[in-house]
Amino acid sequence: MEKLAVLGLGLIGGSLGLALQQAGVAKHISGYDSNQSSTYQAWEKGAITEICDKVENAVEDADMVILATTILAMRELLERIAPRLKRGVLVTDTASTKVQILKWAKTSLPAHVMFVGGHPMAGRELAGIKAAEAGLFEGCAYCLIPAGHSSTEGVEHLSEIIMKLGAHPLILDADRHDRLVAGISHLPFILSSALVQCLSKNENWGELTNLAAGGFRDMSRLAAGSPTMYHGICVTNKEEILKWLDAMASELDNIRTFISHDDEVLESYFTQVKQLRETAFS
Amino acid sequence: MEKLAVLGLGLIGGSLGLALQQAGVAKHISGYDSNQSSTYQAWEKGAITEICDKVENAVEDADMVILATTILAMRELLERIAPRLKRGVLVTDTASTKVQILKWAKTSLPAHVMFVGGHPMAGRELAGIKAAEAGLFEGCAYCLIPAGHSSTEGVEHLSEIIMKLGAHPLILDADRHDRLVAGISHLPFILSSALVQCLSKNENWGELTNLAAGGFRDMSRLAAGSPTMYHGICVTNKEEILKWLDAMASELDNIRTFISHDDEVLESYFTQVKQLRETAFS
Repeated sequence: MEKLAVLGLGLIGGSLGLALQQAGVAKHISGYDSNQSSTYQAWEKGAITEICDKVENAVEDADMVILATTILAMRELLERIAPRLKRGVLVTDTASTKVQILKWAKTSLPAHVMFVGGHPMAGRELAGIKAAEAGLFEGCAYCLIPAGHSSTEGVEHLSEIIMKLGAHPLILDADRHDRLVAGISHLPFILSSALVQCLSKNENWGELTNLAAGGFRDMSRLAAGSPTMYHGICVTNKEEILKWLDAMASELDNIRTFISHDDEVLESYFTQVKQLRETAFS
Repeated sequence: MEKLAVLGLGLIGGSLGLALQQAGVAKHISGYDSNQSSTYQAWEKGAITEICDKVENAVEDADMVILATTILAMRELLERIAPRLKRGVLVTDTASTKVQILKWAKTSLPAHVMFVGGHPMAGRELAGIKAAEAGLFEGCAYCLIPAGHSSTEGVEHLSEIIMKLGAHPLILDADRHDRLVAGISHLPFILSSALVQCLSKNENWGELTNLAAGGFRDMSRLAAGSPTMYHGICVTNKEEILKWLDAMASELDNIRTFISHDDEVLESYFTQVKQLRETAFS
């Protein structure tokens, strides 16, 4: 294609720019970020070929537009770009939840625009354009969420592009996507955050951190993720997250009972989760 | 010293053998494991200099004895070696909980034996002698638990040795140790196990694992740890673990409330845990 626009040049937007550039998907990649220094750095790294100081300029004549800002910024962004999009443009996003985004896209975008929701299951401990890398999506699942009959062609086109990045396209409807990621992705960051909060409230927090080893390091890593992103996810996927939190509370109650009764089932419980975990990543 | 004995040659026992050998702490290191092939592999790797097929032979004339078996095997082991220990020998262990071990040592060992509880805060995802490495303890906290007035000398001696392994000795009493590690080490592996169990009970478990990314990988890593070790920890540190599980349940309830009410505090909650986590590992 001639021109591709990336709006939001953090870890995901920047990495997409780099990966798409490497894959030779577009002649020009225009980029915009509300933080001008990020836009400049993205250009310096080669994630974009054209610096735009207005979203309107970035999307002008674009064949494809990728929204990679925080989710709560996307509603306004969709409204802002809608009148500037050319006929037949493919618009996609990278937000972690999809039901809300699809509603906003339906309300804001004109009928001559194709919208397909996207969610690359990739991330790093570090955030921002500095952490962006072309290889971020290699081997990752990349969810695609069709937004009605008009986007069949868009899904096919996006799938092809995603495979060029080394990722696996996975087509899901928005409800199902949000239910699944609430368990495999949102529940984990909430648990990690609650664990850090729980330990920090203890009078011995300082000494606890002195004793911290690899186990706590792993379990607290997600707690260091982006507060804005986590907040946006909780707001836009509340109901599904609450269901998983209830399932988790009930599971913790189960294991508590086994521990308090010195239940013989406890060793087989640990054996079972070990096997499940090993199979999941085999 | 002339002779050191390591009983139990898994990841920790094997790594201690390698590290102590490298530090030149003893002329001879005798080793025993209930699995003869592990003993042989430990000798082959250079973690021990002498293969023993009986614990009695391994501890005969030893100046220092390290118990590195699973915790629930230690009670019988202490009784078995007690009559063979020479006067003034320093006995230590590597178990993850300390109150129970100190009780067993007090009951089993004669007065002419010094006992100091030990707990290296080190570990790896992999278990067994194959995963053993001399550098395992570098930069780690290594808890030492004095077991009465006679062990002052033993604590000093062990501290010196531990520093030679690149670890930081941390002297704690047994109650306090068990309380702290229940929070920073045992609560995390229970959470990780319960998370895997919770997700696996969902009808979409297969699809959930397809979507799994780095976050779930980190949060489930501990679930793949040794079931025997986890079981032994839960049995010997039940009361402290239950208290932490209650604190965690209450914290999950807090965050659930914030999420369900779209509470403004939610973003600052995530900001706070991010800072806490970054400070803990700075």
